[in-house]
Amino acid sequence: MSEGSGVAEVLGVDLHLELTGAGSRRAVLIRALREAVRSGRLAAGTRLPPYRSLAADLGVARNTVADAYAELVAEGWLTSRQGSGTRVAERVAAPEVEGAPRDTVRALPYDLVQGKPDPAAFPRTAWLASARRALTAAPHDAFGIGDPRGRVELRRELAAYLARVRGVRTGPDRIVVCSGAAHALRLLTRVVPGPWAVEAYGLPFHRGLLAEAGVRTVPVAVDEEGARVGDIRRGPCAVLLTPAHQFPTGGPLHHERRAAAVDWARTTGGFVLEDDYDGEFRYDRRPVGALQGLGPERVVLVGSVSKSLSPALRIGWMVLPGGLVDGVVAAKGAREPYSSATEQLTLAAFLASGAYDRHVRRMRRRHRERRDRLVRVLTERVPEVRVTGIAAGLHAVVELPPGTEGAALTAAERHGVAVEGLSGYRHPDAVGGVGEHGVDGLVVGYATPPERLYGGALDALCKALGSVLR
Amino acid sequence: MSEGSGVAEVLGVDLHLELTGAGSRRAVLIRALREAVRSGRLAAGTRLPPYRSLAADLGVARNTVADAYAELVAEGWLTSRQGSGTRVAERVAAPEVEGAPRDTVRALPYDLVQGKPDPAAFPRTAWLASARRALTAAPHDAFGIGDPRGRVELRRELAAYLARVRGVRTGPDRIVVCSGAAHALRLLTRVVPGPWAVEAYGLPFHRGLLAEAGVRTVPVAVDEEGARVGDIRRGPCAVLLTPAHQFPTGGPLHHERRAAAVDWARTTGGFVLEDDYDGEFRYDRRPVGALQGLGPERVVLVGSVSKSLSPALRIGWMVLPGGLVDGVVAAKGAREPYSSATEQLTLAAFLASGAYDRHVRRMRRRHRERRDRLVRVLTERVPEVRVTGIAAGLHAVVELPPGTEGAALTAAERHGVAVEGLSGYRHPDAVGGVGEHGVDGLVVGYATPPERLYGGALDALCKALGSVLR
Repeated sequence: MSEGSGVAEVLGVDLHLELTGAGSRRAVLIRALREAVRSGRLAAGTRLPPYRSLAADLGVARNTVADAYAELVAEGWLTSRQGSGTRVAERVAAPEVEGAPRDTVRALPYDLVQGKPDPAAFPRTAWLASARRALTAAPHDAFGIGDPRGRVELRRELAAYLARVRGVRTGPDRIVVCSGAAHALRLLTRVVPGPWAVEAYGLPFHRGLLAEAGVRTVPVAVDEEGARVGDIRRGPCAVLLTPAHQFPTGGPLHHERRAAAVDWARTTGGFVLEDDYDGEFRYDRRPVGALQGLGPERVVLVGSVSKSLSPALRIGWMVLPGGLVDGVVAAKGAREPYSSATEQLTLAAFLASGAYDRHVRRMRRRHRERRDRLVRVLTERVPEVRVTGIAAGLHAVVELPPGTEGAALTAAERHGVAVEGLSGYRHPDAVGGVGEHGVDGLVVGYATPPERLYGGALDALCKALGSVLR
Repeated sequence: MSEGSGVAEVLGVDLHLELTGAGSRRAVLIRALREAVRSGRLAAGTRLPPYRSLAADLGVARNTVADAYAELVAEGWLTSRQGSGTRVAERVAAPEVEGAPRDTVRALPYDLVQGKPDPAAFPRTAWLASARRALTAAPHDAFGIGDPRGRVELRRELAAYLARVRGVRTGPDRIVVCSGAAHALRLLTRVVPGPWAVEAYGLPFHRGLLAEAGVRTVPVAVDEEGARVGDIRRGPCAVLLTPAHQFPTGGPLHHERRAAAVDWARTTGGFVLEDDYDGEFRYDRRPVGALQGLGPERVVLVGSVSKSLSPALRIGWMVLPGGLVDGVVAAKGAREPYSSATEQLTLAAFLASGAYDRHVRRMRRRHRERRDRLVRVLTERVPEVRVTGIAAGLHAVVELPPGTEGAALTAAERHGVAVEGLSGYRHPDAVGGVGEHGVDGLVVGYATPPERLYGGALDALCKALGSVLR
């Protein structure tokens, strides 16, 4: 059963072959290799293992493998070149498995859908430098089974960062790492029962996942000072808010309402779930701290790098009241189910080095310039609309005359602009629009297009709006 | 609303301050900074932003900030040193939030719990080199919102690798990336209804997550030729198998039963779910290909890097019949919810470079040596036991005389050995033990301990068993 040491010293590629059927070992091996190539299992260009390695694996003589390779080179299935070993020849057929045909999404040239940073702005070099530092310094246990709370190195950095930048009051033991806001909400449904009060405007995706988790949602009206927190009664066990910048209408929650939200939670024993989705991107001079700082025992803060850095990293966090930590950890399970430890360590190093601050600052400047340009261009060219919700974030709301949203969306698509309507964000049970205003509008994300396309995107948006409003 | 260009050129750290209350701007700023330090929000050693940067952010004069910093240095809250800027002084109190006390798990010195590679063996250098190649070459869209099927670069590499090494017949369109076997099973419960037939011995964790997803499980007896597939009737919609190396009892599924499993699926319209958890770690000379190769339209292959590379990466895959692809993708959602794109690209580069093959081969040699040593030591020192299931994998089963498992586990713990009993893997509805044999045994994982502790672990295990059996 144990093999000789010959195999042990060969580090080559692995190859699975079934040596069955009649004939000499050489004949059986040739048939198996030929079949593997013919069927496409071994793709064109694939490098085969060295003779001695395959011979040891299969328990055959080295010459048998050498003969089989030579035969298949002669037949044209394989090629052999000095220095690059034996490979599968290029003329080989593709795999015979029928591919499932994929829908090709028709991509419009100008992407003004909210919520995504420009992927070209990802700081690759700084991220790689952090990965190098983090993986070099990591203790061995970083490569073992993960703690469901997340790596302590990251939780420490997050606690310090959120305290410094968002006024959060917490410590590493109160933070649980997750893969983003959606994952956080899924976990929170396991510890905070429904119904939840939610803002009358919000992500349909979040409403959908709450419904799927069996959590009924009750809309709270939204006006220019954010959610009308005073309207919430005793029924709900939680209220999900976007205090820094109401999503998507854009007002910051008024300071009296901030206090009222925490008071509501204290009085009823409920929780405020603070979706701090863009708290780092403020363009006015009075930064608004996280609501969490007003009531660390009643507020759950949910954040992620999805808008600040990239949605591709799948790293987020929950800052929890002490009473919810064990429940959320239990909901994650005994082991870390989703979040890569190496990515967590890389983000910790990225935060510790100041690279995250630098990136956020660079992006904030860029978003502000884009926002200013959006407002300027629309004010000049489409004076019929009003641009609101612009003090922060990665998007603005373009308020439209009543009844024109559908036509505006159609015109935008015709002009090559992907953009969303405000009404799609409205809770199905909501009464009225945004405060006293109407409900027609576009939610215009200005962060996504690459620099060279942003001007064209604004131009196309103006043309589309002009074609509808004149 | 728009700010001057002064801010735009300063790339420093961010700092959240609430400038409220009475007094001059200087006094208000000093109070806010002092409070941030006093409360622990700004941790000792934290570097403050440069004057001009904070001044621009807050909309105050640069001198106001400089004066405030100087005042707080004088008071001892901050320190200032040439070249390293202004920092929070070291003598500052810790945050006042009460930490949730954490359970400290009592770690035993010798870890023989199955299923985990030695974390010290993670190939950091090769992984980092792959990350560098992958992130440098990645298209911009890699940093955008992810395709729920996973990055195509990884799916291509996996299709080629699994074809070459495991005899899998598939293409990139049939592969969906996930975060490991548990995630795969959760997704599959959404497209393959219950009940599922499962092996009478298997991971309690998997049975638990199936129960939580509402999937009833029906045990299939296991003997030395693997699961008794012929016993499955028409009721179940799927059968979950470990054909390469029955988990945890260790027999490979007999070739007639392999064919019977696929026949069952074809006849009933059901599916075989092939958990290929350690298919790469075989120590005999007749590698067994994946069952998937016998019936790509009826078999789902589930695999991951958790045992071959590290459970900390959270990367796995499903190879799907064409008819299940859309359902599984829909279950994941419109966007990639969990798996980091940068980790996926790194694994793709790691596979493409041959580094994965090299690592598996190195680990296979090491596991084989450890297995041989385990068998040798137990045969010499505890001849009362029988070691089985040793042709593959990262663990062996030590069969014990009837009625001794509990005492053996207690003795192992007393000797500092963490190890699991066979009976914990048994389905609660199972009839009988493993085939005609008893049900008492230990599942001994030999991959985890660092090299320097392995000898001690075996010695302690022998002493523990000796103390019970003599």
